[in-house]
Amino acid sequence: MWATELRGTGNDALVEVERARPEPAAGQLLVRVKAASINYRDLALIRGDYGSGHQFPLIPLSDGAGEVVSVGEGVTRYKAGDRVIFAMRPLWQNGVPTRKAITTSLGMTLDGVLAEYKVADEAHVVRTPAHLTDEQAASLPIAAVTAWSALVIGGGLRAGQTVVVQGTGGVALFALQFAKHLGARTILLSSSDEKLERGRALGADHLINYWRTPEWGVQVVELTGGEGAEHVLDIGGQTTIEQSLEAVRPSGNIYLVGFLGGSKLEIDLTRVFRRAVSMRGLSVGSIATFEEMNAAIEAWHLEPVIDRVFERNQLGAALNYMGTGAQFGKIALRV
Amino acid sequence: MWATELRGTGNDALVEVERARPEPAAGQLLVRVKAASINYRDLALIRGDYGSGHQFPLIPLSDGAGEVVSVGEGVTRYKAGDRVIFAMRPLWQNGVPTRKAITTSLGMTLDGVLAEYKVADEAHVVRTPAHLTDEQAASLPIAAVTAWSALVIGGGLRAGQTVVVQGTGGVALFALQFAKHLGARTILLSSSDEKLERGRALGADHLINYWRTPEWGVQVVELTGGEGAEHVLDIGGQTTIEQSLEAVRPSGNIYLVGFLGGSKLEIDLTRVFRRAVSMRGLSVGSIATFEEMNAAIEAWHLEPVIDRVFERNQLGAALNYMGTGAQFGKIALRV
Amino acid sequence: MWATELRGTGNDALVEVERARPEPAAGQLLVRVKAASINYRDLALIRGDYGSGHQFPLIPLSDGAGEVVSVGEGVTRYKAGDRVIFAMRPLWQNGVPTRKAITTSLGMTLDGVLAEYKVADEAHVVRTPAHLTDEQAASLPIAAVTAWSALVIGGGLRAGQTVVVQGTGGVALFALQFAKHLGARTILLSSSDEKLERGRALGADHLINYWRTPEWGVQVVELTGGEGAEHVLDIGGQTTIEQSLEAVRPSGNIYLVGFLGGSKLEIDLTRVFRRAVSMRGLSVGSIATFEEMNAAIEAWHLEPVIDRVFERNQLGAALNYMGTGAQFGKIALRV
Amino acid sequence: MWATELRGTGNDALVEVERARPEPAAGQLLVRVKAASINYRDLALIRGDYGSGHQFPLIPLSDGAGEVVSVGEGVTRYKAGDRVIFAMRPLWQNGVPTRKAITTSLGMTLDGVLAEYKVADEAHVVRTPAHLTDEQAASLPIAAVTAWSALVIGGGLRAGQTVVVQGTGGVALFALQFAKHLGARTILLSSSDEKLERGRALGADHLINYWRTPEWGVQVVELTGGEGAEHVLDIGGQTTIEQSLEAVRPSGNIYLVGFLGGSKLEIDLTRVFRRAVSMRGLSVGSIATFEEMNAAIEAWHLEPVIDRVFERNQLGAALNYMGTGAQFGKIALRV
Repeated sequence: MWATELRGTGNDALVEVERARPEPAAGQLLVRVKAASINYRDLALIRGDYGSGHQFPLIPLSDGAGEVVSVGEGVTRYKAGDRVIFAMRPLWQNGVPTRKAITTSLGMTLDGVLAEYKVADEAHVVRTPAHLTDEQAASLPIAAVTAWSALVIGGGLRAGQTVVVQGTGGVALFALQFAKHLGARTILLSSSDEKLERGRALGADHLINYWRTPEWGVQVVELTGGEGAEHVLDIGGQTTIEQSLEAVRPSGNIYLVGFLGGSKLEIDLTRVFRRAVSMRGLSVGSIATFEEMNAAIEAWHLEPVIDRVFERNQLGAALNYMGTGAQFGKIALRV
Repeated sequence: MWATELRGTGNDALVEVERARPEPAAGQLLVRVKAASINYRDLALIRGDYGSGHQFPLIPLSDGAGEVVSVGEGVTRYKAGDRVIFAMRPLWQNGVPTRKAITTSLGMTLDGVLAEYKVADEAHVVRTPAHLTDEQAASLPIAAVTAWSALVIGGGLRAGQTVVVQGTGGVALFALQFAKHLGARTILLSSSDEKLERGRALGADHLINYWRTPEWGVQVVELTGGEGAEHVLDIGGQTTIEQSLEAVRPSGNIYLVGFLGGSKLEIDLTRVFRRAVSMRGLSVGSIATFEEMNAAIEAWHLEPVIDRVFERNQLGAALNYMGTGAQFGKIALRV
Repeated sequence: MWATELRGTGNDALVEVERARPEPAAGQLLVRVKAASINYRDLALIRGDYGSGHQFPLIPLSDGAGEVVSVGEGVTRYKAGDRVIFAMRPLWQNGVPTRKAITTSLGMTLDGVLAEYKVADEAHVVRTPAHLTDEQAASLPIAAVTAWSALVIGGGLRAGQTVVVQGTGGVALFALQFAKHLGARTILLSSSDEKLERGRALGADHLINYWRTPEWGVQVVELTGGEGAEHVLDIGGQTTIEQSLEAVRPSGNIYLVGFLGGSKLEIDLTRVFRRAVSMRGLSVGSIATFEEMNAAIEAWHLEPVIDRVFERNQLGAALNYMGTGAQFGKIALRV
Repeated sequence: MWATELRGTGNDALVEVERARPEPAAGQLLVRVKAASINYRDLALIRGDYGSGHQFPLIPLSDGAGEVVSVGEGVTRYKAGDRVIFAMRPLWQNGVPTRKAITTSLGMTLDGVLAEYKVADEAHVVRTPAHLTDEQAASLPIAAVTAWSALVIGGGLRAGQTVVVQGTGGVALFALQFAKHLGARTILLSSSDEKLERGRALGADHLINYWRTPEWGVQVVELTGGEGAEHVLDIGGQTTIEQSLEAVRPSGNIYLVGFLGGSKLEIDLTRVFRRAVSMRGLSVGSIATFEEMNAAIEAWHLEPVIDRVFERNQLGAALNYMGTGAQFGKIALRV
């Protein structure tokens, strides 16, 4: 079978190789990978911006979906022909993770999904919602699970509350769609009027162009009767935290899910106290959370937004495109 | 009656004056103030370090307790002779506060407790637990309610979890005592071996001298089987956050309750993600929380730790003493 | 203005009278009643089956909606022209109710809504979701709030769980619609294939005709992989509890919301233990719950199902029709 | 080694036999049993009152504690010499149980603890709190875990709430002690003034002799300011449910944990509705719950109450004694 190896850092370090097709051991599935999606961590890893100590060669990409080809002894939940998605943190089954479970992930400490076939324990995949394409399915493991973990598991979102969503990347659009389906009011921020209009079609109740309204936190407060939003999904880190702290309601939540503004975050503690705010770092979520979310996606017939689909040998181009920030939703690879 | 007015900033701005004794209106109590306690915000206000826009003259100090002298029409919950404690955020009855409720407090936007008598709505005081002295009662409104809000209301502390407590100030010792009574394991940090030993007598299971063990986060991880503590009460802000992030368990809580290291906090977002940690800013708590906590204090016969009691005309000296950081527990005033 | 008085028991005890139009006091609204809906408690009261001690004459019916005509001094949340719904338990604002709040209700201990005008405190009404007709709005106070309190507030329904709904009355159809929108799987029971098909159009995933399948609990277990349903809405009391106990998942919830089988319920404790089941009695819900639910109804554009609309002078006919059990959804009155 | 077999029903069916001492397989412990405790289910099983379909011979008794003698390959958590307690529902690790996990238990569907040695998976035991005797440790698996599951896991007991405890059996006294330590107010019911006084020493705030006060529900209401208790532990079933429904606060919990009044329970649904009460059937709890509880027992140095210790060959006498209802706390066997 073919597989793509990352042999170090840089786009040139991506090499397609021949490998022996693996066999599923007891309790395992052999999956024909059909689609993958890319995330900023993939870009950072390949650029050499994601810490040190990685073991190369490594099959890259954490997010993938495919079809079961055969099953090992004792497998009960899946059979050949079933469509499945890989969980990117295979050791985090449910509840609170261990340190090991939160630092073990596909495409980073374990081989990822950019290969023709992949074996996985049956407990380390989830079933693909029936109405999704493989590309849509492959868009879920990081972006959608992070949004669900933030709003539903961590923040306990209730109908009638307000959710502020920054930007129109993968996590952001899933948060927007989930919040809308759960009965929340949504405020979408973007620098592009065209993207804002596309967001309206996905359920955004209020649109703010943050180029024209740099003090958007004040506008959120006005839109919420003077109190602020219960939930603020913060993507920008240093570039957005000040307005996030302005926009949030007392005892509200700011979900820290991105660092477009760099990995350093400087905050004014007096503002954190004055809001009694919880700033929640997110690190994807458990397999049980993934399954709960999939049930909702299936019940709602929710359509993940795929901005563009690249071919599998275009990973470098796909990463470069993601680096421009032009996308609306997720970027997928056809495998 | 006598009252102490703060007429601006600086210890010299504290002036004792004569005022007319107030009368309780309908639904109000007239309370003879018996004791007060001091907090860093009082020190900051008097030093001019607590923002601008304060209305002077202002009766200082938020935390006080006393005895009901007479009651206004329609009062049903209290009668003359009852002992009560003032709630420092009188507009925060329960649940989630409004912006107004979280910024309205005694001794800051409203007159405080450093006077012979004070009127208060009957809904804005709580009953003094029977076994407490007035000085102990006056130690509760900020320090104890903050510790309870953090561990019990926000963090949902469960028996068997581990709580790291930094230092031996008011909030810290209440957190230590509450955690112990609730069945948690406690790790106390101090720079003083003598204070650590006193903490052991209050229920600290493990003691760490952070002068000798500056990498105390690593030691917390060792003491917790390699996973870290579910709850870390962070008092030092910038001076402690790095070790707090090391010490915390994945999906754990860091409670931001102090800024001994200044109001600026710079953090590394990648470490926040890697722990999926919630950093919770605290701003005292509701009156309902105060009452729930008092029920526990009474059931446990918990003894708040009063380091020293000053006379009411020694407020300047008391604040200077607090500024040295030498205390173990709360500093009270006899009124 | 006109008003309908209930002067005792029996349909003949309903008399239309002239009354002086009330004036809104401070904090109150004068509302022109536009629609009402009926519930079994109305039928039981008029038939004399709802205990003793009622004060007659009484304006009947708890559930009503209308339009604000004028407002008293100090009213801030509503103005003339606003559409509102009356809360049937006006003293239950939020959280846990007092005994008084849970036994005080419109149309029972307080005058109800079957009159041309009605005054209400502004805190005792909620805003009508914009997309609802007045008849739909009047269908919410008991049936919809009970369903929301059961599944969302009490049972903490999560996406991916299974909800069993018995019958196609008001509470049942709201529970079905809410469960579907919240991402749950739904199993609907009815004795009528035609009603089951109408239920499918509202979101029922599985249909069981309990005439043909009296052991429907066993079928629920099969449909849920051998474990049973997390949530069972029990309408029939004695006639259904045995199958409800069969159908429920260990640690699941049976919501007791009806007594079509009479007010006596006999259960086998060993079966309750074997399921570790919570049997939750419901008694409508708080005004805060009503508002949260309305936010969801508005976000989802949920359409309450009105079976039939009677004219206001046809209350007796409407009650008789409800007594037949033929309806699908709620029965409304145009006022 | 010796083992006691139950070969059918009746005290005569208990036979002591010789069996081969088992060997621990990989992941297992070999435990020298030191103590056991008895529960009503043991009495019912031996009397033939606990359903049909049991497989005999069966080693009886679910509750036991002992010392690890040797460990199988791969065991990491325990070593020879460690003291452990068997979990009576070994398949219920945490969270919500499956049907199989809730019906699989030691001494009923699996061999119990009345033998010289017993092997167990290391995941199916918990560590004995250091300050407990083996007899005290053996008193925990059913009675204490049931009380903790009821009040803490199911009911979310908060400081300041009121707990009504019926009787002075094992579950009752654990509930009393837990409630007291968690900061609740406790009301103890018994027919014996002497037992009530012993309950006072364990932390009962109010004592009611239900022989002299058959309408004790009314007295609970008076003791709670007219509202009733948030938590009522119901032991008597039919003989107590009516007063339990009177005593409970609206939206409160009645824990159904016993059936001293027989397995049939007849209730008046209108009273369930009027209280909006949750009636929770209990079926012990998970191993994670057991461990959380043990952490609290250790932190509090809580002393389980052992009424009497019998020798292992006196099981019949011990069961007869339990049948009299004379005990105060748990009945243990020295093994």
